[in-house]
Amino acid sequence: MKVSQLFTKTTKTLPADEVSKNAQLLIQAGYVYKVMAGVYAYTPLGLKVVENIKQIVREEMNAIGGQELIMSSLQKRSTWEETGRWDDEVVDIWFKSKLKDGTDVGFGWSHEEAIIEMMKQYISSYKDLPVYVYQFQTKLRNELRAKSGIMRGREFIMKDMYSMSLDAEQHDTFYDGCIDAYKRVYDRLGIGKDTYVTFASGGAFTQFSHEFQTVCDAGEDIIYLHREKNLAVNEEVLDDDNLAKLGIKREELEQVKSAEVGNIFNFGIQKSQDTKFEFTNETGERQNVYLGSYGIGITRVMGVIVEKFADERGLVWPKEVAPAIVYLARLGNAPEVVAAADELYKELTEKNVTVLYDDRDVRPGEKFADADLIGIPYRVVISDKTVQAGTLEVKARTAESAEHISSTELMQRLGA
Amino acid sequence: MKVSQLFTKTTKTLPADEVSKNAQLLIQAGYVYKVMAGVYAYTPLGLKVVENIKQIVREEMNAIGGQELIMSSLQKRSTWEETGRWDDEVVDIWFKSKLKDGTDVGFGWSHEEAIIEMMKQYISSYKDLPVYVYQFQTKLRNELRAKSGIMRGREFIMKDMYSMSLDAEQHDTFYDGCIDAYKRVYDRLGIGKDTYVTFASGGAFTQFSHEFQTVCDAGEDIIYLHREKNLAVNEEVLDDDNLAKLGIKREELEQVKSAEVGNIFNFGIQKSQDTKFEFTNETGERQNVYLGSYGIGITRVMGVIVEKFADERGLVWPKEVAPAIVYLARLGNAPEVVAAADELYKELTEKNVTVLYDDRDVRPGEKFADADLIGIPYRVVISDKTVQAGTLEVKARTAESAEHISSTELMQRLGA
Repeated sequence: MKVSQLFTKTTKTLPADEVSKNAQLLIQAGYVYKVMAGVYAYTPLGLKVVENIKQIVREEMNAIGGQELIMSSLQKRSTWEETGRWDDEVVDIWFKSKLKDGTDVGFGWSHEEAIIEMMKQYISSYKDLPVYVYQFQTKLRNELRAKSGIMRGREFIMKDMYSMSLDAEQHDTFYDGCIDAYKRVYDRLGIGKDTYVTFASGGAFTQFSHEFQTVCDAGEDIIYLHREKNLAVNEEVLDDDNLAKLGIKREELEQVKSAEVGNIFNFGIQKSQDTKFEFTNETGERQNVYLGSYGIGITRVMGVIVEKFADERGLVWPKEVAPAIVYLARLGNAPEVVAAADELYKELTEKNVTVLYDDRDVRPGEKFADADLIGIPYRVVISDKTVQAGTLEVKARTAESAEHISSTELMQRLGA
Repeated sequence: MKVSQLFTKTTKTLPADEVSKNAQLLIQAGYVYKVMAGVYAYTPLGLKVVENIKQIVREEMNAIGGQELIMSSLQKRSTWEETGRWDDEVVDIWFKSKLKDGTDVGFGWSHEEAIIEMMKQYISSYKDLPVYVYQFQTKLRNELRAKSGIMRGREFIMKDMYSMSLDAEQHDTFYDGCIDAYKRVYDRLGIGKDTYVTFASGGAFTQFSHEFQTVCDAGEDIIYLHREKNLAVNEEVLDDDNLAKLGIKREELEQVKSAEVGNIFNFGIQKSQDTKFEFTNETGERQNVYLGSYGIGITRVMGVIVEKFADERGLVWPKEVAPAIVYLARLGNAPEVVAAADELYKELTEKNVTVLYDDRDVRPGEKFADADLIGIPYRVVISDKTVQAGTLEVKARTAESAEHISSTELMQRLGA
């Protein structure tokens, strides 16, 4: 990817009407375009980040037996009436419209009721279980306020997974396995060590539900951290009874601001009782399916990564998330400099190291500022000086200063 | 992918309320699930086909300089008022809703006005041109009737590309290049030889627009084919004047039913005049951007492929589109049969040949029927007999009978 070919441009001007740091920076660096409050388009750079996050999540969901599918945005009223969740008094974030013949339709803000209706067609016997399915879906939510940039959108991408199991043991095993898979996801996203399994209030079926909360000043939540035990509790469950159950003491907890980056719900058989989602067991009896729901807000987590790592010079992307690994800045247009930069671009690309090649005819200072703002993990400079010295000037985005190393050493550092 | 692990099941029962062959077969074979008329979910098998089609289109759009991005479904009223296309009298397929504060929003049925509004932010000088961008977007269209299965959906996936050029020459060069890229797409999708560049009525700017029409009995259009010249004309432009311009005679034309699988519009500077989309040229003057719009309905083309190739036994997927290349049917559970099938599954997978491995404990006839219905290009059978003979029974989906060949020969045929 060459910077000269990107249609986006960086800007020092703070976007008007945008109070969140994540959206400000993403707009300034050319990753997103604001359509309206809570609604963003993703440019080529932004889409790459989204796809990188999706791919990490996809790999970890596949590793625990998830099958990817894609459901619909358009929802039938009847699908949601059974559980009472069509009602705007119960769910106040529906976008709704009507077909030409007057039939009500809604736009998917969640897909829990929809997946149950769909899976009823495929699951009838114990032989059909377990099933684990997930999708990356564009959710539409009519949020009253949307001031947190891509952390709380009216339109956003979510990974939602659903587990259908035949008994409590099979269900619990998957549920616990999914907690571990989520931990691997956040580790790979670079936010693992600041992300805590957080105990929140459960539903009719379980004592607790589990959230994944990342310590983050821009977060909308407050959690109570127990660093030693590597867990947290949410305000709702902060009482002596619950703390005793978790084996922790109030004075050991630290109050921090946090952003929810994932949540998992253990419905047990409650939701399948409400919706009559049943199967025939080995002895011919009808039983309810055990259900779980497991979400990760893909674009939300992108916003959290921005908020956590960005510094005064711009974005800082973790390696697995970054739209490229190397920002290659060519200084000047001397033939030997151009040849050396073109050659390194080719070599890195051939070795599957993604590169954003700044081939523009602009001042070095502008290239450095853009490299920082765009937030690529490594900046590599090729100039008259480096060509003469036979080295490369390499600086990690988070390092204080640059080093001069050979291209062999660069490849080693990049694992290429 | 193992058949035992797919949650979908094939069925011989024709789905109720479904008159189109494509949706009937896709439901019966487990590729799609019907949510409501014109709205389908895609199961793991169906999603693979969708992604294969998208990947072909993506590669060809990238090859002509396209940059992928993703816009939003939610649309502002003001974006569409400038051209008069917010009005339900002008565009009768809008789904609309309201934000909490009463602000009107629409759901994207097209993104032409939206891309112009967005690109105005990035394009101001001749140095910023040309730009070619595309997306794979879920379009929502409030169709009065939706009886053609996935060929005309109320919710469907479309690739829409937009070209922005600085003069007529740059514009025409890209437009012609895009026609060639589309031809490569349809060739790879397996429908190239039955797909015709079709002259349709142009807009204010051009004599003709171009459609890509595939000869298909299930199509909703009628075109007039000139096989020798490898082109067609649409009914709207079938007059002596136009035929003279195209250098063809009425009696040379053959009337056929067809389905539109792509369309391209040459807006020239008309649309940028309407929307005041301008740039500053080399001499400091303001000029209008030349615009083109280039669509391919991804799920529609999937439906057309089904309609064209399916036979009385089920689906028939072209190789680049198929969810897997080999349907591996293991007959019986004898240890040596299981070992041989597992080994071939492993070998093919390692060689990047995608396999749907029928490891179920069901009758051979059921496996053969499912292999045909699901429509994978090659069926490979491993049984007592083949293990004893040291060969494999291989049958192309479209072949009359099976052959017995060595695994080395199979790999050669598959190019593995």
